[in-house]
Amino acid sequence: MKPDYQKIISRVYADISAQPNLGKVPDYIPEIACIEENKFGVNFTDLDLNSFGCGDFQEKFSIQSISKVFALSFVYEKLGEEIWKRVDVEPSGNPFNSLLQLEADCGIPRNPFINAGALVICDILLEVCENPKEKLLEFIRELAEDDQIFYNNAVAQSEMDNSFRNTAMCNYMKSFGNIHSKPSEVIDLYCHLCSIEMTCEQLSKSLLFLVNEGEQPFDGERVLSSSKVKRINAILLTCGFYDESGEFSFLVGLPGKSGVGGGIVALYPKHYCITVWSPKLNEKGNSYRGMKFLEEFTTQTGESIF
Amino acid sequence: MKPDYQKIISRVYADISAQPNLGKVPDYIPEIACIEENKFGVNFTDLDLNSFGCGDFQEKFSIQSISKVFALSFVYEKLGEEIWKRVDVEPSGNPFNSLLQLEADCGIPRNPFINAGALVICDILLEVCENPKEKLLEFIRELAEDDQIFYNNAVAQSEMDNSFRNTAMCNYMKSFGNIHSKPSEVIDLYCHLCSIEMTCEQLSKSLLFLVNEGEQPFDGERVLSSSKVKRINAILLTCGFYDESGEFSFLVGLPGKSGVGGGIVALYPKHYCITVWSPKLNEKGNSYRGMKFLEEFTTQTGESIF
Amino acid sequence: MKPDYQKIISRVYADISAQPNLGKVPDYIPEIACIEENKFGVNFTDLDLNSFGCGDFQEKFSIQSISKVFALSFVYEKLGEEIWKRVDVEPSGNPFNSLLQLEADCGIPRNPFINAGALVICDILLEVCENPKEKLLEFIRELAEDDQIFYNNAVAQSEMDNSFRNTAMCNYMKSFGNIHSKPSEVIDLYCHLCSIEMTCEQLSKSLLFLVNEGEQPFDGERVLSSSKVKRINAILLTCGFYDESGEFSFLVGLPGKSGVGGGIVALYPKHYCITVWSPKLNEKGNSYRGMKFLEEFTTQTGESIF
Amino acid sequence: MKPDYQKIISRVYADISAQPNLGKVPDYIPEIACIEENKFGVNFTDLDLNSFGCGDFQEKFSIQSISKVFALSFVYEKLGEEIWKRVDVEPSGNPFNSLLQLEADCGIPRNPFINAGALVICDILLEVCENPKEKLLEFIRELAEDDQIFYNNAVAQSEMDNSFRNTAMCNYMKSFGNIHSKPSEVIDLYCHLCSIEMTCEQLSKSLLFLVNEGEQPFDGERVLSSSKVKRINAILLTCGFYDESGEFSFLVGLPGKSGVGGGIVALYPKHYCITVWSPKLNEKGNSYRGMKFLEEFTTQTGESIF
Repeated sequence: MKPDYQKIISRVYADISAQPNLGKVPDYIPEIACIEENKFGVNFTDLDLNSFGCGDFQEKFSIQSISKVFALSFVYEKLGEEIWKRVDVEPSGNPFNSLLQLEADCGIPRNPFINAGALVICDILLEVCENPKEKLLEFIRELAEDDQIFYNNAVAQSEMDNSFRNTAMCNYMKSFGNIHSKPSEVIDLYCHLCSIEMTCEQLSKSLLFLVNEGEQPFDGERVLSSSKVKRINAILLTCGFYDESGEFSFLVGLPGKSGVGGGIVALYPKHYCITVWSPKLNEKGNSYRGMKFLEEFTTQTGESIF
Repeated sequence: MKPDYQKIISRVYADISAQPNLGKVPDYIPEIACIEENKFGVNFTDLDLNSFGCGDFQEKFSIQSISKVFALSFVYEKLGEEIWKRVDVEPSGNPFNSLLQLEADCGIPRNPFINAGALVICDILLEVCENPKEKLLEFIRELAEDDQIFYNNAVAQSEMDNSFRNTAMCNYMKSFGNIHSKPSEVIDLYCHLCSIEMTCEQLSKSLLFLVNEGEQPFDGERVLSSSKVKRINAILLTCGFYDESGEFSFLVGLPGKSGVGGGIVALYPKHYCITVWSPKLNEKGNSYRGMKFLEEFTTQTGESIF
Repeated sequence: MKPDYQKIISRVYADISAQPNLGKVPDYIPEIACIEENKFGVNFTDLDLNSFGCGDFQEKFSIQSISKVFALSFVYEKLGEEIWKRVDVEPSGNPFNSLLQLEADCGIPRNPFINAGALVICDILLEVCENPKEKLLEFIRELAEDDQIFYNNAVAQSEMDNSFRNTAMCNYMKSFGNIHSKPSEVIDLYCHLCSIEMTCEQLSKSLLFLVNEGEQPFDGERVLSSSKVKRINAILLTCGFYDESGEFSFLVGLPGKSGVGGGIVALYPKHYCITVWSPKLNEKGNSYRGMKFLEEFTTQTGESIF
Repeated sequence: MKPDYQKIISRVYADISAQPNLGKVPDYIPEIACIEENKFGVNFTDLDLNSFGCGDFQEKFSIQSISKVFALSFVYEKLGEEIWKRVDVEPSGNPFNSLLQLEADCGIPRNPFINAGALVICDILLEVCENPKEKLLEFIRELAEDDQIFYNNAVAQSEMDNSFRNTAMCNYMKSFGNIHSKPSEVIDLYCHLCSIEMTCEQLSKSLLFLVNEGEQPFDGERVLSSSKVKRINAILLTCGFYDESGEFSFLVGLPGKSGVGGGIVALYPKHYCITVWSPKLNEKGNSYRGMKFLEEFTTQTGESIF
């Protein structure tokens, strides 16, 4: 018998709303820093397209690194296993040595979800598309069945103005030959992807193809082969939460991805997608309430991939 | 409809047997170095205790690091979440910086399956039991319903004679206060655990409690709570294969654990356990044929947690 | 009694010319890669302005990192001890972890002679001068009493086209606030400084102020205070040869600086300056024959600061 | 004209005595922790054996790492350049990555004055002598012309009880084959050497052979060749003060060696040896007043090797 998801979600939402909202909104992007920090939304959508939510689940927020899942899916579909020559699938362990790792690994990033890896994915995007920004937006809009998804150019510009570390990384990888376009173009695309704004509802729906073995549940269109989907889910589990990936796997037990905008998406393969948004981040850069919510949610459903 | 596991296993076994057996038997433990390198065994056991195998699946081999799963389960049951104060649950990323990580992490190992973490687990074992060697052997024998499981003292001695790196790590952690007993006692216990010898068949059976939400399927006895089992499985997935954990998750998609004796155990929660043994190791220290077999097996069954 | 320097130099020059010329001309700068690899020049100039040389000592070559000595002297004179807030005076130990060190040291480079440190010095130059390129050339020309010293714009351009690692470093330090101008301007200045071309004779003469407690020996003009000169010489000794600084100190025992153009300058305080040029570099990036020559020269004179 | 050393020393001693005594006595060795923290002694001895001092210069203290100079001199004399196959002569850069460096350098320590290097020197001592403890004490007594120099067994024992990091390092190097004896024997010898107690006066005198090109000034006996002495002095300059070596070279400009007992010896080749003792250490582990004293002393004499 299935758990009563709606009841569980409402209860957990209420419980967590009643607890102190710890953590900190990151201050390096003015457009994000000024967000109302007690925003809190949750959306659940299953493969039968039952969808419901709590709180601010229909309000748009900056999806930031969650966009890396779309970018990876897009280039993986285009180029296939080829892409793994330029980016690995291993967890990175520790943020502080990422540049050291790049050196040891000869410019091959550990995985497509750390910044270095996402920059390589952007570089590939620039190679496979004429208009990567438009193409990617189109791809996401089709997944979400929704035209009202946009870049936030002010956020993108803000991030470009503060992209010294990513520029460092990009140039460093270029010194190994693993960036082909100009670093400034790669950074521009990267910052735009991060600036995409979506609601919890849109995010849940748009990622259902990863729950559904590669097909969109609403029209049966195949986005990716089931084998590729399995592999993306595997990387999400081992690498989706920076150096808190092990912790998320341990506490929540579902593949997922977080962004510094405060969003987290979690997937239960063959069943549902659940998205949480709350802007205050814990020390590892993941939404404080998002992590809490999902931990409690899976504890109450008893459902996880393990 | 369930796949015909027996047929798939026989076919994959035959295919891989026909291919070149690459890799290398490690030479630093004389008792393991002299093993017949083409030994190859597979066992499949499900929750209904259907069990069958191919090749050398009833021959004993040195389980080495697979014993870390038993040791962790044992202390986790005894002490509960307390143990995570002394060992973390994050993948370690890269072998070459493990000592650097220990420094950055103030002597707290990244996870219980890297050597540093297993040494801490051994240190805890020494604190919670009077006779940890006997207790642990007893624990494993009960899980396997089989008294014929032993330490190989010659292997243990051999490993102790070559344990300079582990001794280094143990002393290093002791300098941070995260080893409580004498380093030499910790090393002695650690090397003994590594020396345990079991067959593929015994291994599959003894780990069914991790497939069965914590209960032994043959007598319903609870070994661990379902929540603890989920967590161990999560750590197995993110950390069970050293710095090839991401790759195993990517290619196979099941929690598992390998040992330098050439054994690999993989678990499909709620369904079955499958153990492969082939002594030649790939560059990352995991059984070459074991990895190949499991990749092909999950490809043909289409089953994974993702 | 003073050694007969001219005799010793001629003899050592002849000996080393007769031995195989090992090492490799670096290939990443086309203008340097095409140099005749057996060029070999030596110049000795003392405080009485006795000067003599062997071989190609009047031929210009790319001084590369030797220019860092001029840049440091120039900004040290302008800003005084202030500069040490932005760059340290410690040897860096090991090239491979320079980025890790930058992280650990919060963007403060270890010393002004590693690339990161020289980039900070260039950034300071951009702050203290309107026309840093002209000012620095003027400074060097005055030190050498010679107007015929120029940038090689082709070499500078070539280096800019291959400056991905330096650009990485520069952006990385900017992320810590330790680069104030635009990274591209810093890199432009840095690459120009590296491209300066001088002869062994010009180099020896232009660095006599470091031998002479801060005064130019030909006109008594003070370039730097004696205390600042002592400090520059100290840094030259501990940091002048990348991760071969200890070896140079051990074998030669004089402060000095090398460049990838194959030049090495060594200073015997209160006595003389000696410059060697030979384009093939050893594994650590220092002139193979330059190192050999200076080791043998100090062995035969018995003179060193130790 | 020579400076009036006695006057300068008295003045600087008085000045520094009048200033606050900052820093901290290390607490990990009970026998050292309980020392009266305002002890402060200085001794100056030149090659004519003029010797004078201020304050507690005739009181014994634990020479700790200064003993590494004696150990290196002893084995260098016995084995010659052979020893550099097992230990390098480069500054180590940064304490926090010493174990990482050992890995990158395949178990070869950076230099004989970091702990790892001194452990290798102790291991060599165990190979070249039957009774290394007695031999080394004899060697030091002859250099000091004084039989009243001893090990402090309580200090040695205390250090052995807290030697987990050195034991870690020793085992780690043994795993690379660069330690030949048992780690426990190496540690025992190492801790004894550190426990030697001497006065400032004894230290200055015993190290005059390094000032005098290898000969004892009082009887003309040769201890080491002048070439070996130059090399030891070079390593003292680049590596004698852990990761403050560059700073000491920069501020003081003399080769020297410090110990955590609060002693510092500095050498002005061909002229004199000066020893300072004050137990409170700065953040880098060097005597706070010792550093201050020597900086001020060389500023006032205007003498340095640069």
